[in-house]
Amino acid sequence: MLRYSQHRFPGRLITVEGIDGSGKSTQLALLHRWLAGEGYPVRFSEWNSSALVKQITSRGKKKQILTPTTFCLTHAADFADRVEHDVIPALRSGGIVLSDRYIYTAFARDVVRGVDPQWVRRVYRFAVKPTLAFYFRVPLDVALGRILGGRNALKYYEAGMDLDLSNDVEESFKIFQSKILKQYDALVKEFGLIVIDATMPIEEQQAQMRALVKDKLAGLKRIN
Amino acid sequence: MLRYSQHRFPGRLITVEGIDGSGKSTQLALLHRWLAGEGYPVRFSEWNSSALVKQITSRGKKKQILTPTTFCLTHAADFADRVEHDVIPALRSGGIVLSDRYIYTAFARDVVRGVDPQWVRRVYRFAVKPTLAFYFRVPLDVALGRILGGRNALKYYEAGMDLDLSNDVEESFKIFQSKILKQYDALVKEFGLIVIDATMPIEEQQAQMRALVKDKLAGLKRIN
Repeated sequence: MLRYSQHRFPGRLITVEGIDGSGKSTQLALLHRWLAGEGYPVRFSEWNSSALVKQITSRGKKKQILTPTTFCLTHAADFADRVEHDVIPALRSGGIVLSDRYIYTAFARDVVRGVDPQWVRRVYRFAVKPTLAFYFRVPLDVALGRILGGRNALKYYEAGMDLDLSNDVEESFKIFQSKILKQYDALVKEFGLIVIDATMPIEEQQAQMRALVKDKLAGLKRIN
Repeated sequence: MLRYSQHRFPGRLITVEGIDGSGKSTQLALLHRWLAGEGYPVRFSEWNSSALVKQITSRGKKKQILTPTTFCLTHAADFADRVEHDVIPALRSGGIVLSDRYIYTAFARDVVRGVDPQWVRRVYRFAVKPTLAFYFRVPLDVALGRILGGRNALKYYEAGMDLDLSNDVEESFKIFQSKILKQYDALVKEFGLIVIDATMPIEEQQAQMRALVKDKLAGLKRIN
Protein backbone atom coordinates (compact mmCIF):
# COMPACT_ATOMS: atom_id res chain seq x y z
CA MET A 1 0.00 0.00 0.00
CA LEU A 2 1.18 3.44 -0.91
CA ARG A 3 1.66 5.89 1.95
CA TYR A 4 1.72 9.61 1.41
CA SER A 5 4.07 11.20 3.87
CA GLN A 6 2.91 13.99 6.17
CA HIS A 7 3.94 17.38 4.83
CA ARG A 8 6.42 19.57 6.70
CA PHE A 9 5.06 22.96 5.75
CA PRO A 10 3.96 25.28 8.56
CA GLY A 11 0.38 25.48 7.19
CA ARG A 12 -2.55 23.07 7.43
CA LEU A 13 -4.36 21.20 4.67
CA ILE A 14 -7.97 20.24 5.29
CA THR A 15 -9.87 18.28 2.67
CA VAL A 16 -13.48 17.14 2.32
CA GLU A 17 -14.79 14.21 0.33
CA GLY A 18 -18.17 12.70 -0.37
CA ILE A 19 -20.58 12.07 -3.19
CA ASP A 20 -22.60 14.93 -4.63
CA GLY A 21 -25.40 15.76 -2.22
CA SER A 22 -23.38 14.78 0.84
CA GLY A 23 -23.25 18.40 1.97
CA LYS A 24 -19.45 18.51 2.06
CA SER A 25 -19.18 21.84 0.23
CA THR A 26 -21.63 23.46 2.62
CA GLN A 27 -19.60 22.20 5.55
CA LEU A 28 -16.37 23.48 4.05
CA ALA A 29 -17.93 26.88 3.39
CA LEU A 30 -19.01 27.09 7.04
CA LEU A 31 -15.56 26.07 8.19
CA HIS A 32 -14.07 28.70 5.89
CA ARG A 33 -16.22 31.45 7.41
CA TRP A 34 -15.33 30.38 10.91
CA LEU A 35 -11.58 30.18 10.30
CA ALA A 36 -11.52 33.51 8.47
CA GLY A 37 -13.51 35.05 11.32
CA GLU A 38 -10.90 33.72 13.74
CA GLY A 39 -8.27 35.60 11.77
CA TYR A 40 -6.50 32.73 10.02
CA PRO A 41 -5.28 33.10 6.46
CA VAL A 42 -7.47 30.65 4.56
CA ARG A 43 -7.23 29.60 0.95
CA PHE A 44 -9.81 27.67 -0.99
CA SER A 45 -8.98 25.02 -3.59
CA GLU A 46 -11.50 23.23 -5.73
CA TRP A 47 -11.30 20.03 -7.72
CA ASN A 48 -10.98 20.44 -11.47
CA SER A 49 -10.45 24.19 -11.38
CA SER A 50 -6.90 24.82 -12.55
CA ALA A 51 -6.72 27.45 -15.25
CA LEU A 52 -4.13 25.38 -17.09
CA VAL A 53 -6.16 22.26 -17.54
CA LYS A 54 -9.76 23.37 -17.14
CA GLN A 55 -10.10 24.23 -20.81
CA ILE A 56 -9.09 20.82 -22.02
CA THR A 57 -11.07 18.75 -19.53
CA SER A 58 -14.19 20.72 -20.36
CA ARG A 59 -13.46 20.43 -24.07
CA GLY A 60 -12.81 16.70 -23.79
CA LYS A 61 -15.97 16.29 -21.76
CA LYS A 62 -18.06 18.24 -24.24
CA LYS A 63 -16.84 16.10 -27.11
CA GLN A 64 -17.04 12.93 -24.99
CA ILE A 65 -13.69 11.72 -26.20
CA LEU A 66 -12.08 11.10 -22.81
CA THR A 67 -11.15 7.52 -22.00
CA PRO A 68 -10.66 6.39 -18.38
CA THR A 69 -6.89 6.85 -18.77
CA THR A 70 -7.00 10.33 -20.33
CA PHE A 71 -9.74 11.30 -17.86
CA CYS A 72 -7.42 10.27 -15.04
CA LEU A 73 -4.27 11.90 -16.42
CA THR A 74 -5.84 15.23 -17.32
CA HIS A 75 -7.39 15.49 -13.87
CA ALA A 76 -4.04 14.55 -12.35
CA ALA A 77 -2.36 17.31 -14.36
CA ASP A 78 -5.04 19.74 -13.21
CA PHE A 79 -4.49 18.66 -9.64
CA ALA A 80 -0.70 18.89 -9.89
CA ASP A 81 -1.01 22.40 -11.25
CA ARG A 82 -3.10 23.48 -8.27
CA VAL A 83 -0.93 21.68 -5.74
CA GLU A 84 2.24 23.30 -7.02
CA HIS A 85 0.92 26.78 -7.74
CA ASP A 86 -1.68 27.20 -4.99
CA VAL A 87 -1.66 24.60 -2.24
CA ILE A 88 2.06 24.29 -1.49
CA PRO A 89 2.80 28.04 -1.62
CA ALA A 90 -0.10 28.66 0.79
CA LEU A 91 1.04 25.88 3.13
CA ARG A 92 4.59 27.17 2.96
CA SER A 93 3.47 30.61 4.06
CA GLY A 94 1.66 29.13 7.05
CA GLY A 95 -1.89 29.34 5.70
CA ILE A 96 -4.81 26.96 5.97
CA VAL A 97 -5.81 25.38 2.68
CA LEU A 98 -9.37 24.07 2.39
CA SER A 99 -9.78 21.65 -0.48
CA ASP A 100 -13.18 20.65 -1.83
CA ARG A 101 -12.40 17.13 -3.03
CA TYR A 102 -8.88 15.75 -3.10
CA ILE A 103 -6.98 12.72 -4.41
CA TYR A 104 -9.61 10.38 -2.95
CA THR A 105 -12.11 11.69 -5.50
CA ALA A 106 -9.79 10.49 -8.25
CA PHE A 107 -9.20 7.16 -6.54
CA ALA A 108 -12.95 6.56 -6.23
CA ARG A 109 -14.05 7.79 -9.65
CA ASP A 110 -11.20 6.52 -11.75
CA VAL A 111 -11.34 3.05 -10.26
CA VAL A 112 -15.08 2.89 -10.93
CA ARG A 113 -14.18 3.83 -14.52
CA GLY A 114 -11.97 0.75 -14.67
CA VAL A 115 -8.56 2.29 -14.04
CA ASP A 116 -6.12 0.13 -12.11
CA PRO A 117 -6.33 1.11 -8.38
CA GLN A 118 -2.59 0.83 -7.81
CA TRP A 119 -1.77 2.83 -10.93
CA VAL A 120 -3.96 5.81 -10.08
CA ARG A 121 -2.46 5.94 -6.56
CA ARG A 122 0.99 6.00 -8.10
CA VAL A 123 0.05 8.71 -10.57
CA TYR A 124 -0.92 10.93 -7.62
CA ARG A 125 2.27 10.13 -5.72
CA PHE A 126 3.29 13.82 -5.65
CA ALA A 127 0.27 14.82 -3.59
CA VAL A 128 0.61 16.48 -0.19
CA LYS A 129 -1.00 14.47 2.60
CA PRO A 130 -3.84 16.37 4.27
CA THR A 131 -3.59 17.39 7.91
CA LEU A 132 -7.24 16.30 8.20
CA ALA A 133 -9.22 14.49 5.51
CA PHE A 134 -12.96 14.42 6.16
CA TYR A 135 -15.40 12.10 4.47
CA PHE A 136 -19.11 12.93 4.57
CA ARG A 137 -20.90 9.62 4.53
CA VAL A 138 -24.47 9.67 3.34
CA PRO A 139 -26.83 6.95 2.09
CA LEU A 140 -27.35 7.08 -1.66
CA ASP A 141 -31.07 7.85 -1.52
CA VAL A 142 -30.54 10.79 0.83
CA ALA A 143 -27.91 12.26 -1.50
CA LEU A 144 -30.09 11.66 -4.56
CA GLY A 145 -33.06 13.34 -2.89
CA ARG A 146 -30.93 16.41 -2.20
CA ILE A 147 -29.54 16.54 -5.71
CA LEU A 148 -32.07 15.40 -8.23
CA GLY A 149 -34.81 17.71 -7.03
CA GLY A 150 -32.95 20.96 -7.09
CA ARG A 151 -30.76 20.91 -10.15
CA ASN A 152 -30.65 20.98 -13.89
CA ALA A 153 -29.79 18.14 -16.23
CA LEU A 154 -26.96 15.84 -15.15
CA LYS A 155 -23.83 16.07 -17.24
CA TYR A 156 -22.52 13.17 -19.29
CA TYR A 157 -19.41 12.24 -17.28
CA GLU A 158 -20.97 13.30 -13.97
CA ALA A 159 -23.64 10.68 -14.54
CA GLY A 160 -21.01 8.12 -15.63
CA MET A 161 -22.69 7.86 -19.04
CA ASP A 162 -19.31 6.88 -20.53
CA LEU A 163 -19.57 3.60 -18.61
CA ASP A 164 -22.69 2.35 -20.40
CA LEU A 165 -24.40 1.60 -17.10
CA SER A 166 -27.81 2.64 -18.39
CA ASN A 167 -29.30 4.61 -21.26
CA ASP A 168 -31.25 6.66 -18.73
CA VAL A 169 -29.10 9.50 -17.38
CA GLU A 170 -30.67 9.52 -13.93
CA GLU A 171 -30.48 5.76 -13.61
CA SER A 172 -26.85 5.79 -14.80
CA PHE A 173 -26.07 8.48 -12.22
CA LYS A 174 -27.55 6.36 -9.44
CA ILE A 175 -25.58 3.25 -10.37
CA PHE A 176 -22.41 5.30 -10.81
CA GLN A 177 -22.78 7.01 -7.42
CA SER A 178 -23.48 3.72 -5.65
CA LYS A 179 -20.24 2.33 -7.06
CA ILE A 180 -18.38 5.45 -5.92
CA LEU A 181 -19.85 5.08 -2.43
CA LYS A 182 -18.36 1.60 -2.24
CA GLN A 183 -14.97 2.92 -3.26
CA TYR A 184 -15.15 5.65 -0.63
CA ASP A 185 -15.88 3.07 2.04
CA ALA A 186 -12.71 1.23 1.09
CA LEU A 187 -10.74 4.49 1.05
CA VAL A 188 -11.85 5.34 4.58
CA LYS A 189 -9.98 2.31 5.81
CA GLU A 190 -7.02 2.59 3.48
CA PHE A 191 -6.27 6.26 4.17
CA GLY A 192 -7.86 6.79 7.57
CA LEU A 193 -10.41 9.36 6.41
CA ILE A 194 -12.40 10.97 9.22
CA VAL A 195 -16.01 9.94 8.76
CA ILE A 196 -18.77 12.47 9.45
CA ASP A 197 -22.35 11.22 9.45
CA ALA A 198 -23.79 13.52 6.80
CA THR A 199 -27.39 12.78 7.77
CA MET A 200 -26.94 14.70 11.03
CA PRO A 201 -28.09 18.33 11.33
CA ILE A 202 -25.73 20.76 9.62
CA GLU A 203 -24.79 22.44 12.90
CA GLU A 204 -23.82 19.18 14.51
CA GLN A 205 -21.60 18.10 11.62
CA GLN A 206 -19.95 21.50 11.71
CA ALA A 207 -19.37 21.28 15.45
CA GLN A 208 -17.62 17.93 15.03
CA MET A 209 -15.48 19.32 12.24
CA ARG A 210 -14.48 22.44 14.17
CA ALA A 211 -13.53 20.44 17.24
CA LEU A 212 -11.10 18.35 15.21
CA VAL A 213 -9.76 21.32 13.26
CA LYS A 214 -9.28 23.36 16.44
CA ASP A 215 -6.95 20.67 17.75
CA LYS A 216 -4.68 21.24 14.76
CA LEU A 217 -4.44 25.03 14.92
CA ALA A 218 -1.92 25.38 17.75
CA GLY A 219 1.00 27.58 16.74
CA LEU A 220 -0.63 28.86 13.55
CA LYS A 221 -0.25 32.61 13.02
CA ARG A 222 -3.29 34.82 12.54
CA ILE A 223 -3.44 37.83 10.28
CA ASN A 224 -5.68 40.00 12.46
CA MET B 1 12.27 -2.59 -13.09
CA LEU B 2 9.01 -2.12 -14.88
CA ARG B 3 8.39 -4.33 -17.89
CA TYR B 4 5.89 -3.45 -20.55
CA SER B 5 4.34 -6.58 -21.96
CA GLN B 6 4.38 -7.29 -25.67
CA HIS B 7 1.10 -6.37 -27.30
CA ARG B 8 -1.14 -9.01 -28.84
CA PHE B 9 -2.63 -6.99 -31.65
CA PRO B 10 -2.14 -8.20 -35.21
CA GLY B 11 -0.38 -4.98 -36.25
CA ARG B 12 3.19 -3.74 -35.66
CA LEU B 13 4.42 -0.75 -33.70
CA ILE B 14 7.73 0.79 -34.73
CA THR B 15 9.14 3.71 -32.79
CA VAL B 16 12.15 5.99 -33.24
CA GLU B 17 13.98 7.94 -30.57
CA GLY B 18 16.92 10.29 -30.48
CA ILE B 19 17.78 13.88 -29.70
CA ASP B 20 16.86 16.64 -32.14
CA GLY B 21 19.26 16.51 -35.04
CA SER B 22 19.75 12.75 -34.84
CA GLY B 23 17.95 12.28 -38.15
CA LYS B 24 15.31 9.94 -36.69
CA SER B 25 12.38 11.70 -38.37
CA THR B 26 14.05 11.50 -41.76
CA GLN B 27 14.63 7.79 -41.26
CA LEU B 28 11.04 7.24 -40.22
CA ALA B 29 9.78 9.14 -43.27
CA LEU B 30 11.91 6.92 -45.54
CA LEU B 31 10.63 3.82 -43.81
CA HIS B 32 7.09 5.11 -44.21
CA ARG B 33 7.51 5.58 -47.96
CA TRP B 34 8.99 2.14 -48.35
CA LEU B 35 6.29 0.36 -46.35
CA ALA B 36 3.49 2.22 -48.12
CA GLY B 37 5.12 1.36 -51.46
CA GLU B 38 5.10 -2.30 -50.42
CA GLY B 39 1.36 -2.04 -49.91
CA TYR B 40 1.16 -2.10 -46.12
CA PRO B 41 -1.38 0.05 -44.28
CA VAL B 42 0.82 2.52 -42.40
CA ARG B 43 -0.19 5.08 -39.82
CA PHE B 44 1.94 7.89 -38.49
CA SER B 45 1.89 9.07 -34.88
CA GLU B 46 3.83 12.01 -33.56
CA TRP B 47 4.78 13.02 -30.05
CA ASN B 48 2.75 15.85 -28.55
CA SER B 49 0.18 16.01 -31.30
CA SER B 50 -3.11 14.89 -29.77
CA ALA B 51 -5.93 17.29 -30.55
CA LEU B 52 -7.21 16.90 -27.00
CA VAL B 53 -4.14 18.05 -25.18
CA LYS B 54 -2.17 20.04 -27.73
CA GLN B 55 -3.98 23.24 -26.88
CA ILE B 56 -3.11 23.12 -23.23
CA THR B 57 0.50 22.05 -23.55
CA SER B 58 1.12 24.85 -26.03
CA ARG B 59 -0.73 27.30 -23.80
CA GLY B 60 1.17 26.15 -20.72
CA LYS B 61 4.40 26.40 -22.64
CA LYS B 62 3.66 29.87 -23.92
CA LYS B 63 2.93 31.12 -20.42
CA GLN B 64 5.84 29.11 -18.98
CA ILE B 65 3.77 27.90 -16.06
CA LEU B 66 4.43 24.18 -16.44
CA THR B 67 6.27 22.47 -13.60
CA PRO B 68 8.11 19.16 -14.17
CA THR B 69 5.10 17.29 -12.76
CA THR B 70 2.47 19.06 -14.85
CA PHE B 71 4.76 18.90 -17.89
CA CYS B 72 4.97 15.14 -17.41
CA LEU B 73 1.26 14.58 -16.74
CA THR B 74 -0.04 16.69 -19.61
CA HIS B 75 2.29 14.93 -22.04
CA ALA B 76 1.19 11.59 -20.60
CA ALA B 77 -2.45 12.56 -21.15
CA ASP B 78 -1.60 13.59 -24.70
CA PHE B 79 0.15 10.30 -25.26
CA ALA B 80 -2.69 8.26 -23.75
CA ASP B 81 -5.15 10.02 -26.01
CA ARG B 82 -3.14 9.05 -29.09
CA VAL B 83 -2.51 5.50 -27.92
CA GLU B 84 -6.16 4.85 -27.28
CA HIS B 85 -7.65 6.69 -30.25
CA ASP B 86 -4.99 6.12 -32.91
CA VAL B 87 -2.30 3.57 -32.10
CA ILE B 88 -4.36 0.72 -30.65
CA PRO B 89 -7.18 0.90 -33.25
CA ALA B 90 -4.57 0.82 -36.04
CA LEU B 91 -2.72 -2.11 -34.44
CA ARG B 92 -6.01 -3.90 -33.89
CA SER B 93 -6.86 -3.62 -37.57
CA GLY B 94 -3.50 -5.10 -38.52
CA GLY B 95 -1.75 -1.90 -39.55
CA ILE B 96 1.80 -0.70 -39.03
CA VAL B 97 2.09 2.28 -36.70
CA LEU B 98 5.19 4.45 -37.01
CA SER B 99 5.74 6.63 -33.98
CA ASP B 100 8.13 9.57 -34.00
CA ARG B 101 9.21 9.58 -30.34
CA TYR B 102 7.60 7.34 -27.77
CA ILE B 103 7.58 6.83 -23.99
CA TYR B 104 11.39 6.91 -23.91
CA THR B 105 11.25 10.60 -24.81
CA ALA B 106 9.24 11.21 -21.66
CA PHE B 107 11.55 9.06 -19.57
CA ALA B 108 14.61 10.97 -20.80
CA ARG B 109 13.21 14.50 -20.67
CA ASP B 110 11.15 14.28 -17.53
CA VAL B 111 13.95 12.70 -15.53
CA VAL B 112 16.34 15.44 -16.65
CA ARG B 113 13.66 17.86 -15.39
CA GLY B 114 13.93 16.23 -11.96
CA VAL B 115 10.94 13.91 -12.06
CA ASP B 116 11.36 10.62 -10.22
CA PRO B 117 12.44 7.94 -12.77
CA GLN B 118 10.30 5.22 -11.26
CA TRP B 119 7.26 7.47 -11.06
CA VAL B 120 7.31 8.52 -14.71
CA ARG B 121 7.67 4.88 -15.80
CA ARG B 122 4.63 4.03 -13.70
CA VAL B 123 2.61 6.91 -15.10
CA TYR B 124 3.16 5.47 -18.60
CA ARG B 125 2.25 1.96 -17.51
CA PHE B 126 -0.64 1.81 -20.01
CA ALA B 127 1.69 2.13 -23.01
CA VAL B 128 1.86 -0.52 -25.71
CA LYS B 129 5.32 -2.05 -26.06
CA PRO B 130 6.82 -1.41 -29.51
CA THR B 131 7.52 -4.29 -31.86
CA LEU B 132 10.79 -2.49 -32.65
CA ALA B 133 12.14 0.55 -30.83
CA PHE B 134 15.01 2.27 -32.62
CA TYR B 135 17.38 4.74 -31.05
CA PHE B 136 19.46 7.00 -33.29
CA ARG B 137 22.65 7.63 -31.41
CA VAL B 138 24.58 10.72 -32.40
CA PRO B 139 27.30 12.73 -30.64
CA LEU B 140 26.04 16.02 -29.27
CA ASP B 141 28.18 18.24 -31.49
CA VAL B 142 27.03 16.48 -34.67
CA ALA B 143 23.39 16.95 -33.69
CA LEU B 144 23.98 20.58 -32.72
CA GLY B 145 25.68 21.27 -36.02
CA ARG B 146 22.65 19.89 -37.87
CA ILE B 147 20.18 21.85 -35.78
CA LEU B 148 21.59 25.19 -34.80
CA GLY B 149 22.53 26.19 -38.31
CA GLY B 150 19.27 25.58 -40.04
CA ARG B 151 16.55 26.71 -37.69
CA ASN B 152 14.89 29.62 -36.01
CA ALA B 153 15.02 30.54 -32.35
CA LEU B 154 14.93 27.68 -29.87
CA LYS B 155 11.79 27.48 -27.80
CA TYR B 156 11.79 27.90 -24.03
CA TYR B 157 11.05 24.32 -22.92
CA GLU B 158 12.84 22.80 -25.90
CA ALA B 159 16.01 24.46 -24.70
CA GLY B 160 15.31 23.39 -21.10
CA MET B 161 15.21 27.04 -20.03
CA ASP B 162 12.87 26.08 -17.18
CA LEU B 163 15.81 24.26 -15.59
CA ASP B 164 17.98 27.36 -15.08
CA LEU B 165 20.95 25.67 -16.72
CA SER B 166 22.12 28.88 -18.35
CA ASN B 167 20.75 32.31 -19.23
CA ASP B 168 21.89 31.77 -22.79
CA VAL B 169 19.27 29.81 -24.76
CA GLU B 170 21.76 28.05 -27.00
CA GLU B 171 24.03 27.16 -24.10
CA SER B 172 21.05 25.91 -22.09
CA PHE B 173 19.96 23.81 -25.05
CA LYS B 174 23.40 22.19 -25.25
CA ILE B 175 23.54 21.32 -21.56
CA PHE B 176 19.95 20.05 -21.65
CA GLN B 177 20.58 17.84 -24.71
CA SER B 178 23.76 16.40 -23.21
CA LYS B 179 21.79 15.38 -20.12
CA ILE B 180 19.12 13.81 -22.32
CA LEU B 181 21.79 11.88 -24.23
CA LYS B 182 22.95 10.34 -20.95
CA GLN B 183 19.40 9.32 -20.11
CA TYR B 184 18.96 7.73 -23.54
CA ASP B 185 22.12 5.68 -23.04
CA ALA B 186 20.66 4.29 -19.83
CA LEU B 187 17.33 3.60 -21.57
CA VAL B 188 19.04 1.60 -24.30
CA LYS B 189 20.08 -0.92 -21.68
CA GLU B 190 16.91 -0.82 -19.61
CA PHE B 191 14.49 -1.28 -22.51
CA GLY B 192 16.66 -2.95 -25.14
CA LEU B 193 16.39 -0.15 -27.69
CA ILE B 194 17.96 -0.96 -31.07
CA VAL B 195 20.86 1.42 -31.55
CA ILE B 196 21.50 2.88 -35.00
CA ASP B 197 24.70 4.85 -35.52
CA ALA B 198 23.22 8.11 -36.72
CA THR B 199 26.54 9.39 -38.06
CA MET B 200 26.42 6.83 -40.90
CA PRO B 201 25.14 7.75 -44.36
CA ILE B 202 21.37 8.04 -44.51
CA GLU B 203 21.05 5.11 -46.94
CA GLU B 204 23.04 2.81 -44.69
CA GLN B 205 20.96 3.62 -41.61
CA GLN B 206 17.82 3.05 -43.64
CA ALA B 207 19.08 -0.28 -44.91
CA GLN B 208 19.75 -1.46 -41.36
CA MET B 209 16.29 -0.36 -40.29
CA ARG B 210 14.53 -2.04 -43.21
CA ALA B 211 16.34 -5.33 -42.64
CA LEU B 212 15.10 -5.45 -39.05
CA VAL B 213 11.59 -4.29 -39.95
CA LYS B 214 11.35 -6.82 -42.79
CA ASP B 215 11.89 -9.61 -40.30
CA LYS B 216 8.77 -8.52 -38.46
CA LEU B 217 6.38 -8.28 -41.40
CA ALA B 218 5.62 -11.96 -41.92
CA GLY B 219 1.89 -12.60 -41.98
CA LEU B 220 0.92 -8.95 -42.20
CA LYS B 221 -1.81 -8.24 -44.75
CA ARG B 222 -1.28 -5.73 -47.56
CA ILE B 223 -3.92 -3.45 -48.96
CA ASN B 224 -2.82 -3.61 -52.57
